[in-house]
Amino acid sequence: MEERKYLDSAQQPTATGDMNPESFRMYGHQVVDWIADYLGHVSEYAVLAQTAPGDIRHALPDRPPIEPDFERIIMPGITHWNSGGFLAYFGITGSGPGILGEMLSGALNINAMLWRTSPAATELEQVTLDWLRQMLGLPYTLFGVINDTASSGVLYALAAAREALPFHIRQKGIAGRADVPRLRYYASEEAHSSVDKAGIVLGIGQEGLRKIGVDSEFRMDAEQLEQAIREDIIAGWQPFAVVATVGTTSTTSVDPVPQIADICEQYNLWLHVDGAYGGSAAVDSTMRWVIAGWERADSIIVNPHKWLFTPIDCSILYTNKPGVVKAAFSLVPEYLRNTESAIEDVANLMDYGTSLGRRFRSLKLWMIMRYFGQEGLAARIREHIRLAQLFAEWVDESSTFERLAPAPFSTICFRAHQNGLDDESKLDALNEAIMNSINAKGRFFLSHTKLKGKFAMRVAIGNLRTTERDIRDLWNILQTCLSDMSVIYS
Amino acid sequence: MEERKYLDSAQQPTATGDMNPESFRMYGHQVVDWIADYLGHVSEYAVLAQTAPGDIRHALPDRPPIEPDFERIIMPGITHWNSGGFLAYFGITGSGPGILGEMLSGALNINAMLWRTSPAATELEQVTLDWLRQMLGLPYTLFGVINDTASSGVLYALAAAREALPFHIRQKGIAGRADVPRLRYYASEEAHSSVDKAGIVLGIGQEGLRKIGVDSEFRMDAEQLEQAIREDIIAGWQPFAVVATVGTTSTTSVDPVPQIADICEQYNLWLHVDGAYGGSAAVDSTMRWVIAGWERADSIIVNPHKWLFTPIDCSILYTNKPGVVKAAFSLVPEYLRNTESAIEDVANLMDYGTSLGRRFRSLKLWMIMRYFGQEGLAARIREHIRLAQLFAEWVDESSTFERLAPAPFSTICFRAHQNGLDDESKLDALNEAIMNSINAKGRFFLSHTKLKGKFAMRVAIGNLRTTERDIRDLWNILQTCLSDMSVIYS
Repeated sequence: MEERKYLDSAQQPTATGDMNPESFRMYGHQVVDWIADYLGHVSEYAVLAQTAPGDIRHALPDRPPIEPDFERIIMPGITHWNSGGFLAYFGITGSGPGILGEMLSGALNINAMLWRTSPAATELEQVTLDWLRQMLGLPYTLFGVINDTASSGVLYALAAAREALPFHIRQKGIAGRADVPRLRYYASEEAHSSVDKAGIVLGIGQEGLRKIGVDSEFRMDAEQLEQAIREDIIAGWQPFAVVATVGTTSTTSVDPVPQIADICEQYNLWLHVDGAYGGSAAVDSTMRWVIAGWERADSIIVNPHKWLFTPIDCSILYTNKPGVVKAAFSLVPEYLRNTESAIEDVANLMDYGTSLGRRFRSLKLWMIMRYFGQEGLAARIREHIRLAQLFAEWVDESSTFERLAPAPFSTICFRAHQNGLDDESKLDALNEAIMNSINAKGRFFLSHTKLKGKFAMRVAIGNLRTTERDIRDLWNILQTCLSDMSVIYS
Repeated sequence: MEERKYLDSAQQPTATGDMNPESFRMYGHQVVDWIADYLGHVSEYAVLAQTAPGDIRHALPDRPPIEPDFERIIMPGITHWNSGGFLAYFGITGSGPGILGEMLSGALNINAMLWRTSPAATELEQVTLDWLRQMLGLPYTLFGVINDTASSGVLYALAAAREALPFHIRQKGIAGRADVPRLRYYASEEAHSSVDKAGIVLGIGQEGLRKIGVDSEFRMDAEQLEQAIREDIIAGWQPFAVVATVGTTSTTSVDPVPQIADICEQYNLWLHVDGAYGGSAAVDSTMRWVIAGWERADSIIVNPHKWLFTPIDCSILYTNKPGVVKAAFSLVPEYLRNTESAIEDVANLMDYGTSLGRRFRSLKLWMIMRYFGQEGLAARIREHIRLAQLFAEWVDESSTFERLAPAPFSTICFRAHQNGLDDESKLDALNEAIMNSINAKGRFFLSHTKLKGKFAMRVAIGNLRTTERDIRDLWNILQTCLSDMSVIYS
């Protein structure tokens, strides 16, 4: 490329232009220094913001513009997802190379809707997703596209599954049609709420999602699934898809994808695998078991913004049926037509979902793959699993705490359970009080779930700053909290 | 807040941790210098990337990891949306303060799904959207939420409109139900393709969107709208929503919102106003006419990432009926429950759409409002309108070019039309050839549309770097191209 071809027309921004480049340089260096300090000290902040509702809002004036005061006004209301003490939900990391990627992507500010609107963005997205596919050991037939979140990905996958039915739903819709039966899809009771939301949006409704029971280890019961499908067919429903989860949100349980794939094949159902959290583990060859059966899936989600240290948002939808996804969504108005789009080799990634505007998200993923390499990523995931297994051992060996679920990855569900205290509602109250007390202290942030009706604390390790010292400290604090509270809750 | 309370536990990243903070500082300063140089020289790059399909892909190795080479491999494939010569689609700007905001947001890497997962993110989003509402002169009753794109916003708005029907669609869906009629919504022929896509996803289907004809100035014909609604009711359809556009994508025409609001009121239809592009103009008091009738809308979209100099993505959905939007979407699993959510004052912004993960997008908007102020934003928009009107005058006074649509904002639709050349297909070919020739030269990037069957070039001014010199250069190049080509196309 001939760069800087138009030197004669170089122009500085005018009075009605942008901040000038030299001011940007000055402020940018200040911001980088701030970020470096922040990254060096993030684990020293209270993890869960200790503000009351309205504190931040009231600190801001009612009307624009205002005095700048990011540090004074905004920072106290930040919950520090970057802290080593962040063990809630699923741990994530905005890693250094990822932040650098976001800085560049913010600066370039391109829209990757069409190939031509930045060929590098479309092609880098295809190449990085192919690399990640190789890293995960997935088949070369998969086509990948980056969305904001898994919530969008599962919506697109189920829209494609619905479009694969012989009812011309894209064209004619599903309302008021005597020729379209009620539609049903399946997921386990432990599947993510985004699976329910997708059905709501698609007009299938919450009743269109049949939740399948789980075994004692929170994995979908494949026999119940088949039974449910048979019942529904007899009752006049049209089954069309199954969502299998590899790493459920509460316990990180793994549904039996190979058996589910058999059932999908037999009944001709779209198989979607939600590996948003668990899928990333397959970059480590010892964890390759997680992708068993994925080669038979129609669509798969893996979220680099969860456990591959990528700043949010970056969620990948892989599909073996890009043509069906495109058929469900592609709609090209005249103002977006162009000559390259006729070339077979050219993908316009706006065709694989609803969002027309698309940020340059592959850049940060590329930076991360370059910086850490596959072995580096695998080592980090192995370390998180090691820390979690260590914590699980302590719980298992303890006479006052107990585990409430297996821990195939880096997330532990457990509770305090002292000898003699067997009133479940008291146990729930005790554990909730322990968790709230820990969260209020600031050193750690834990979240919870309910398992078989029992309140369970979760320790989810996924942040690059979490160390063995953190989890040892947490274990000590848990003991202290329990002994402080056991008087009240006995 | 007691910051840095845990100094005793300060830990540097371990061997399996992140890039260390001092390395981040070094690379970060390099990246800031690169960005400052890039912003200073962006108008010197070819605007439309001059690469062939596969060029970038083939420059990248097949397998990770690779040698870093952002400048050599990626930059040649970037279409420079930041360039003053970018006049395609709608011009956007990743302004300096916006980029600084994105840098901080990437570094903090918080997820604004729940209030508690960063109170500052939720409260700053509410406050900045309230400020913007004031800047635009909109009623205080509006509740705002930031989405990635207007495509998501219109999907959410129409899902809410559908949920407002008395059919319990969220719960029961719309498939296979004898009690739900076919559903219909309305938009003009000039409405954005995302309006069609929303209906596809919602199961309403392309046939469920009835497109209403436009007048000679590409504005929805309100009489045709009412006629269509009456016909549909008689034919057994259930009308439920109308999308009015303020600043359509092809010509930036403005639908007659007050008349459309009357019709929506009469037939009890949800009124959605798509002001993704045009709405921003209302920050200038002389352009306040654009929001006429908006106070009667149920939902409104304005995209700061279009004409408010905010890096993509940042699209605002305002609604007068947050309760209905929430009723359509809210679904809170146990693992996301928490005590603050019971407080009336606490919004969990994940409740107003499908995406659970939410970036800290209000930060960049806050930076921009602070840096430019309302007067600064208005002055920039006025300047873009002035440049466009100047260009429109040149076209109108020319004997060889003609305008094909009114230009209420900063976008001009026009074509070359030489005396004696009245064969429409030859005129189309001539104008397409002129556009392609200009795009291949690198100094400018134009896009096109079709208006009443005629190929129209578009000049859309919305980038802070576009100056009067740019459009004078463009006007000269257009003359040259036309005289070069008129021999062939006569």
